[in-house]
Amino acid sequence: MVFKKITLIGTSAESFDDAVDDAVGRAEATLDNLKWAEVEEMGVEIAGVEGREYQAEVEVAFELEE
Amino acid sequence: MVFKKITLIGTSAESFDDAVDDAVGRAEATLDNLKWAEVEEMGVEIAGVEGREYQAEVEVAFELEE
Amino acid sequence: MVFKKITLIGTSAESFDDAVDDAVGRAEATLDNLKWAEVEEMGVEIAGVEGREYQAEVEVAFELEE
Amino acid sequence: MVFKKITLIGTSAESFDDAVDDAVGRAEATLDNLKWAEVEEMGVEIAGVEGREYQAEVEVAFELEE
Amino acid sequence: MVFKKITLIGTSAESFDDAVDDAVGRAEATLDNLKWAEVEEMGVEIAGVEGREYQAEVEVAFELEE
Amino acid sequence: MVFKKITLIGTSAESFDDAVDDAVGRAEATLDNLKWAEVEEMGVEIAGVEGREYQAEVEVAFELEE
Amino acid sequence: MVFKKITLIGTSAESFDDAVDDAVGRAEATLDNLKWAEVEEMGVEIAGVEGREYQAEVEVAFELEE
Amino acid sequence: MVFKKITLIGTSAESFDDAVDDAVGRAEATLDNLKWAEVEEMGVEIAGVEGREYQAEVEVAFELEE
Amino acid sequence: MVFKKITLIGTSAESFDDAVDDAVGRAEATLDNLKWAEVEEMGVEIAGVEGREYQAEVEVAFELEE
Amino acid sequence: MVFKKITLIGTSAESFDDAVDDAVGRAEATLDNLKWAEVEEMGVEIAGVEGREYQAEVEVAFELEE
Amino acid sequence: MVFKKITLIGTSAESFDDAVDDAVGRAEATLDNLKWAEVEEMGVEIAGVEGREYQAEVEVAFELEE
Amino acid sequence: MVFKKITLIGTSAESFDDAVDDAVGRAEATLDNLKWAEVEEMGVEIAGVEGREYQAEVEVAFELEE
Repeated sequence: MVFKKITLIGTSAESFDDAVDDAVGRAEATLDNLKWAEVEEMGVEIAGVEGREYQAEVEVAFELEE
Repeated sequence: MVFKKITLIGTSAESFDDAVDDAVGRAEATLDNLKWAEVEEMGVEIAGVEGREYQAEVEVAFELEE
Repeated sequence: MVFKKITLIGTSAESFDDAVDDAVGRAEATLDNLKWAEVEEMGVEIAGVEGREYQAEVEVAFELEE
Repeated sequence: MVFKKITLIGTSAESFDDAVDDAVGRAEATLDNLKWAEVEEMGVEIAGVEGREYQAEVEVAFELEE
Repeated sequence: MVFKKITLIGTSAESFDDAVDDAVGRAEATLDNLKWAEVEEMGVEIAGVEGREYQAEVEVAFELEE
Repeated sequence: MVFKKITLIGTSAESFDDAVDDAVGRAEATLDNLKWAEVEEMGVEIAGVEGREYQAEVEVAFELEE
Repeated sequence: MVFKKITLIGTSAESFDDAVDDAVGRAEATLDNLKWAEVEEMGVEIAGVEGREYQAEVEVAFELEE
Repeated sequence: MVFKKITLIGTSAESFDDAVDDAVGRAEATLDNLKWAEVEEMGVEIAGVEGREYQAEVEVAFELEE
Repeated sequence: MVFKKITLIGTSAESFDDAVDDAVGRAEATLDNLKWAEVEEMGVEIAGVEGREYQAEVEVAFELEE
Repeated sequence: MVFKKITLIGTSAESFDDAVDDAVGRAEATLDNLKWAEVEEMGVEIAGVEGREYQAEVEVAFELEE
Repeated sequence: MVFKKITLIGTSAESFDDAVDDAVGRAEATLDNLKWAEVEEMGVEIAGVEGREYQAEVEVAFELEE
Repeated sequence: MVFKKITLIGTSAESFDDAVDDAVGRAEATLDNLKWAEVEEMGVEIAGVEGREYQAEVEVAFELEE
């Protein structure tokens, strides 16, 4: 059994929880056998967006098929 | 005056804030003289749970009795 | 073009999102050309406050005028 | 010449050496021009497995074709 | 559901795998609901022991009873 | 042979050396077979104390009885 | 909006700037919507190459298509 | 004698050396008694600029007047 | 309530405690509402000074006025 | 009493344990009063060797003669 | 001009300041052109010594002769 | 096969590339079987030099003779 981890950055105009869900949701839509996610960084983009854009860098782990 | 720190991991089906509160609430229920808490790691358990489980690793500090 | 970063710690009785917004909002009220913010630490003050005080240490970057 | 690094987590019921070999072996089976690997984390899964499952997170580097 | 983590250092005259097992085995003998372990540091004591003593610092997580 | 590490924060109105001794002394008063201590953090509390309070976060290691 | 980050190692016989450009250029040739890059490590390969080979490990971020 | 450190991010269309010089030059233009600088991060902005923008985050130390 | 942190480096010909006090004392002389300080680095300047110069890099936090 | 630490990288075609022993054994053959060793990094060389070469970077401490 | 850094661990029965001085003093006795020292770790040996032994790991930098 | 790593700091009035080359060149002049180098820190000395002095701390690895 081997897992692979990839790094995604989710974004949300609302909250960091939503930004993490954004990244995890994207992973769920394109990968099978998702196992867990780890939050690596959180930040806020202020310039060049309306209001604020919450960002969460997330490492997502999934099991590789044999 | 000496403080001690212990490491707890709170969980929530709702949000990271709730996961932190889960750990801090547990500490408050069993320890006197709680002082502060530091968030060390945040993650999401995806496999083996319904929906998602938000997890927050928290170091909790309390004052030891003399 | 040169940016400067300063370190602020926002607080909230409600949530970490609000604590980050508290720091970013303060920066917006006193600095021009704010660009982004990075969350460095999150903690909870328990003693000496009513309820809990969520704290977020945030580095805020803004562009210096030439 | 450009290299790419990916992150795999190998597992073994026997030892950490086997867990690292598991990840490297998987990389060798699917990638050409593997160059080196770096061990990033080691852990043991205890719940939900028979006995213990040794895990090794490994970054594997390979040369991209031009 | 709240987990607690404690830090143990296992030792072995034979190998790092045995040193990790030493720490995990001790945790299993005294704690219920052990979940996982993370290897934090590895070292070798040379002076004051016969041969070499392999040491592994391990964080062990278990679920607290409600 | 298994060691356990716990985290204490000693305090002193005089110096960091005294703050470390405060934590180590507390450990010696309540634990057998103390082996060594590692200084993790040093800080100064300024508000809410008379003068200054030097603080030292210390990990203390002791041998567990078999 | 979700970003993905991948890790590339560029090389150059001339300079670290060229090694970073090598990695970024490779990313630009194969990925759309490249946003930014972060330099993670720099090193020099001396054995097994003529002269010196400057290497730069770079994390490259790009926006995923919806 | 007390020094203060501030964090600047210099930019250049040419190279990382120029980005560091950009930050140090800005500090020299506005601060007396500059002593040294430490490079903390290097990155490349790719989107929203013509070509590439090299960025260097630099901590600059200067002596405070008594 | 928002706090700001600045980075000072105190110096002393006598000891690290004095170097930390040097930085904290300078902060107290110029800032209101000082709250706490964190020691980040300690070093010794040997060349270009008589004897030795102990240095302590300290982050000092104070509350901003509303 | 003063200790000195040096950094060695041991190698083995068999295992990480052997790679650590390789470095410690080399230190023992050339240095007196060896005290302990700390494992800093582990990796696998894959290209340019037959099979795999396990590598362990180890800091070795020994007491200096007075 | 090239500097070299070596790692020494000084010890003292009295204080961390003395432990740092012990390491720096040893370096001064055997090396020319010492420039500065950086404190990397501080710890206390408790077992196997009378009282306590303060230890300071110090990186010492000196200029190499051309 | 055992490698040893030493830490050198190269300097240059021109660029960080030259500072790295300065350290690597010094190592090549005095050591056989140099293998690779890793850049650990980069900084700029401003006071006490004419113009600016770029500095690069580099770990250099070489193979020990058997």
